[in-house]
Amino acid sequence: MSQERLRKSIREIPDFPIPGILFYDVTTMFKDADVLQELADTLYEMYKGKGITKVVGIESRGFIMGPILALRLNAGFVPIRKPGKLPAETIEESYAKEYGTDTIQMHKDAISPDDVVLLHDDLLATGGTMLAACNLVKQMNPKNVYVNFIIELEELHGKEAFKDVEIQSVLTL
Amino acid sequence: MSQERLRKSIREIPDFPIPGILFYDVTTMFKDADVLQELADTLYEMYKGKGITKVVGIESRGFIMGPILALRLNAGFVPIRKPGKLPAETIEESYAKEYGTDTIQMHKDAISPDDVVLLHDDLLATGGTMLAACNLVKQMNPKNVYVNFIIELEELHGKEAFKDVEIQSVLTL
Repeated sequence: MSQERLRKSIREIPDFPIPGILFYDVTTMFKDADVLQELADTLYEMYKGKGITKVVGIESRGFIMGPILALRLNAGFVPIRKPGKLPAETIEESYAKEYGTDTIQMHKDAISPDDVVLLHDDLLATGGTMLAACNLVKQMNPKNVYVNFIIELEELHGKEAFKDVEIQSVLTL
Repeated sequence: MSQERLRKSIREIPDFPIPGILFYDVTTMFKDADVLQELADTLYEMYKGKGITKVVGIESRGFIMGPILALRLNAGFVPIRKPGKLPAETIEESYAKEYGTDTIQMHKDAISPDDVVLLHDDLLATGGTMLAACNLVKQMNPKNVYVNFIIELEELHGKEAFKDVEIQSVLTL
């Protein structure tokens, strides 16, 4: 029932950003106060009791439920951003995209070896960005790393790229 | 005491992004679980009882406390983004910057005339982006509009650009 309600709150947009792609718009989940509460409750239930001390969100859609999850888990929130956006000393990872490479950065003092980290983004497609984010976080040697998405696109097999972390999604489409 | 603690959790970075600018880094507030809770409590106390139905956050630093505030106020969260990022039908506003103009967009169906809106961003400097965001939200004729920042830089007099909305900040520097 809850799953069904969350599923129905996602807006499907054909041919965005390019022809042939069906885009899952999660803004319709966030703008509905009841769905936002339910999504927060669902995510909290998935990760309570795991001792998570930092939730790391990937710019920019991972900044929406990431901080909410941090608040509910009584953890801190850490942003992973595009180059040049974070003002203090950063570490970075680059990864291959269809055309060229992308780089993501995190503040060097954001994660310590005492942390249990939950990485969050809205959607798992091929998983390239999240894999780079995992490697970035692992540079700081945290105790444990979990990975979470709101939506997993099962047919793209993005999960297979992750070897040694537990990945959970709210919805599998 | 609470104000002082929040103030001390902000990291000051000289000469970022350009020489002569003192940058207030709020990521140090978010990464500390206790400060994050205190910031959430402080913001909630400022806006509870005002009947707010939508919190609107400006990309990307306004995406961090904006959703938390929406959750606490039992409101929906709406993102304002740079052009081309939102997949459904949008409305937009352009505004002058030091060099050239910038444009921001919001989904057309994100706000209705029944809504009481709280606009949120991390920092009030000259206020150009927030003023454009206000005008964008007002296109949808909501019942009322409030504006909130974590930090207000008093010496830049950004507040003066806003005529008919209530503006509050957690900290004035």
